[in-house]
Amino acid sequence: MSKIITISRQYASGGSAIGKSVAKLLGLPYFDKTIIDVTAKESGFDPKYIERAEQTTTTSFLYNLAINGLYTQPLTDQLFAAESRVIKSLAEKGPCVIVGRCADYVLAEHYECFNVFVHSTDEFRINRIVEHDGLTPQEAADLIKQKDKARRRHYKYYTERNWGDSQNYDLCINTASCGIERSAEIIALLASE
Amino acid sequence: MSKIITISRQYASGGSAIGKSVAKLLGLPYFDKTIIDVTAKESGFDPKYIERAEQTTTTSFLYNLAINGLYTQPLTDQLFAAESRVIKSLAEKGPCVIVGRCADYVLAEHYECFNVFVHSTDEFRINRIVEHDGLTPQEAADLIKQKDKARRRHYKYYTERNWGDSQNYDLCINTASCGIERSAEIIALLASE
Repeated sequence: MSKIITISRQYASGGSAIGKSVAKLLGLPYFDKTIIDVTAKESGFDPKYIERAEQTTTTSFLYNLAINGLYTQPLTDQLFAAESRVIKSLAEKGPCVIVGRCADYVLAEHYECFNVFVHSTDEFRINRIVEHDGLTPQEAADLIKQKDKARRRHYKYYTERNWGDSQNYDLCINTASCGIERSAEIIALLASE
Repeated sequence: MSKIITISRQYASGGSAIGKSVAKLLGLPYFDKTIIDVTAKESGFDPKYIERAEQTTTTSFLYNLAINGLYTQPLTDQLFAAESRVIKSLAEKGPCVIVGRCADYVLAEHYECFNVFVHSTDEFRINRIVEHDGLTPQEAADLIKQKDKARRRHYKYYTERNWGDSQNYDLCINTASCGIERSAEIIALLASE
């Protein structure tokens, strides 16, 4: 019987590809952006707003005040709460693979999970972005820095943990040295034991 | 052809057992305390002093002054330099498994390594200590805290990196969820590809 597998990942490290591959190997449902859509439907948020907001931790106080009034949560916090509800309802249905969305933290208390952090070298990630998205190496390097910073801050803000600290995961794997397919095979093996 | 495998580990997480098992699986030499002895022979340190000093980063200024005079390195720094020379000379001879001693950092520039961090839950580690060393659970918990603190400080002092930050390793593995033997098999597989 497989556990729920959560995958946190550095941008362009191959975490999503690994997640899809693990789901395929184990015959499990796979969730990432899908969660946004479901959340949006359930909570009435505009999916485009959600996609923009979820990589930030705070929106301006005045903006929140204007939108929400003084005594409500900031929009990003409301969104996090809504996403967490969706993640829990997916977990309720049984084993699955969830990429991103602080799912490791959200599910920690009540579900048996196998938590993975996928990372890589800058070189490996830049090459992937250049190949897949046609950016220049410099643009790719800038994007990596910006995305990692946002994810680190987002994770810290909601979980009070350090993103990528091995202590929070069952397995942390470097795709530059271990390979994407091999990483997926190892995760599938360990999570189904 | 296997790489040089370095293993850093939380106290009582099973890192040494994994190192021995990986060495056996791949037919490679295994080094841990042995390095202390070789270092001691090469540098003229007393092995007992080395064992005590290597888990600390600083000895008192006055003590160093009395032993070494004003313009020499502290003893712990001399020891680290001597150990680093030994680690490099072992690496020169070819693939091997080295547990502890900041070997990942020492070899980073000139050798192709597969760097592993082994960690676990407190519960798993306490149980191992109680079973193997006959301490009470409370004594084991205190020992874990003390040893981890020393290792973290030692690693930070000499490498300026954070001990257990996944970014510094090819693989970080939690023995409570992955098991000691299975961890060894996976490391052996990945490091020999």
